[in-house]
Amino acid sequence: MEAKPGPLVIIGGAEDKQGDCVILREVVRLAGGSRARIVVVTAATEFPVEVGNEYAGVFLRLGAGDVQPLHIGRREEAEAPFAERLVEKATCVFFTGGEQRRITRLLGGTRLDAVLHRMHGEGLVLAGTSAGASMMSSTMIVEGEAETHPRPGIVHMEPGMEFLAGLVIDQHFAQRGRLGRLLSAVAKYPHHLGLGIDENTAVIVSGLECRVIGSGAVSIVDAGALTYSNVDRADRGEPLALCGVRLHVLPAGYRFHLRERRPVLDDD
Amino acid sequence: MEAKPGPLVIIGGAEDKQGDCVILREVVRLAGGSRARIVVVTAATEFPVEVGNEYAGVFLRLGAGDVQPLHIGRREEAEAPFAERLVEKATCVFFTGGEQRRITRLLGGTRLDAVLHRMHGEGLVLAGTSAGASMMSSTMIVEGEAETHPRPGIVHMEPGMEFLAGLVIDQHFAQRGRLGRLLSAVAKYPHHLGLGIDENTAVIVSGLECRVIGSGAVSIVDAGALTYSNVDRADRGEPLALCGVRLHVLPAGYRFHLRERRPVLDDD
Repeated sequence: MEAKPGPLVIIGGAEDKQGDCVILREVVRLAGGSRARIVVVTAATEFPVEVGNEYAGVFLRLGAGDVQPLHIGRREEAEAPFAERLVEKATCVFFTGGEQRRITRLLGGTRLDAVLHRMHGEGLVLAGTSAGASMMSSTMIVEGEAETHPRPGIVHMEPGMEFLAGLVIDQHFAQRGRLGRLLSAVAKYPHHLGLGIDENTAVIVSGLECRVIGSGAVSIVDAGALTYSNVDRADRGEPLALCGVRLHVLPAGYRFHLRERRPVLDDD
Repeated sequence: MEAKPGPLVIIGGAEDKQGDCVILREVVRLAGGSRARIVVVTAATEFPVEVGNEYAGVFLRLGAGDVQPLHIGRREEAEAPFAERLVEKATCVFFTGGEQRRITRLLGGTRLDAVLHRMHGEGLVLAGTSAGASMMSSTMIVEGEAETHPRPGIVHMEPGMEFLAGLVIDQHFAQRGRLGRLLSAVAKYPHHLGLGIDENTAVIVSGLECRVIGSGAVSIVDAGALTYSNVDRADRGEPLALCGVRLHVLPAGYRFHLRERRPVLDDD
């Protein structure tokens, strides 16, 4: 039997940690419940101990068999055999929020990077929230202006950790008014679907399909449908115009086919 | 020669009043420049004197021939022959910001309402910002939550002053993260195009076409393109899903055909 890549749980930030914990509970379930061994990578945050301990507490309370924070503050720590061994024994690796660039700078090209890709290919669940969500794709939004119309230069993109192809992720989507920056990101690279994930909301990717859980919605922006854009001239100073973008807004329970770029409805 | 309705200048709020004043300058130009006679209706605001005087000052500085604030704080004042005469002699009536419901409550069904419609039909320019923009359509957004995903109940709609058919206007659009509430508004009534107008940005409607001016963009949300929505079940508590909404983002200089629901590009 061939190994299948594990699911990805991509969380839009500010997920519930006190109440029903719908999203983190699903992480524990996917990771194996009482047999779950979850490694919490705190590389993105400047408060690794506090954040790591908080998630460890929540995951244990939700029934995970074992939780181990993994603090990576220097690249050497991502080269340590200890880190590699931890991931090899894990059923899920969870990435906290913070700054996405810290993850790519600290982990990129290390032994930890390699073992994460290898184990994910063999079924390891990967989960991440906020910065830990953004870095999942091959190209990620590093920073950008919020609450503005789309225009060139408001969004800064960099290569991500490449656990997932063909899309760009933005988080805290509705809460921070980030439509403009997500449109700016996909206008230039319509190959990428734009996924705007609200707070306390997650996308779970299995194979080529994803489904939504949590209390908000996921806005999927498909610039592949563009009928007109002046994005090349906009780079030279013209205001950006985009016509015919396709937009889907999917709450919990809805599914989307990432390659076919369409919702998967129950009567399909 | 048959009279044609005057243009409508629909402004997303916070238009420049100190610098180039691109939008208010265009209002003066459309109103006749040095022969412009502009009436500033302050019905929406609780600070009619300050707001009225400010606009009077700006319009005069921009070269308008005459400016007259018209304060309507009670319905009797909207019945006064004085108000009617003022509008009959005007080339443009400008509605300030404030609360859109104040306009419909104070003016609705009065002599002032009637003369505004009659004169507009004969070429009078109508302009309005923020609340004064929202009330232009037949159905208007009165209030709603911002920075949230679309869902039933977050947007409250009421009949507007009906100077313009077939659309719903939202203002301060990008700045206040109002995509969710505009989608909620059009999801239920896809007959209406949703116009989300940014601050310091305006739509000028002439006949069935409109064009954009100002520093931001106008986001046009077309729920007529919906491929799926559960809006009826969402009313009974299901989270709202919308698939296949068409979205256009148009900066200054771009035009849109309101009935054909498509951008008018230069090579058309």
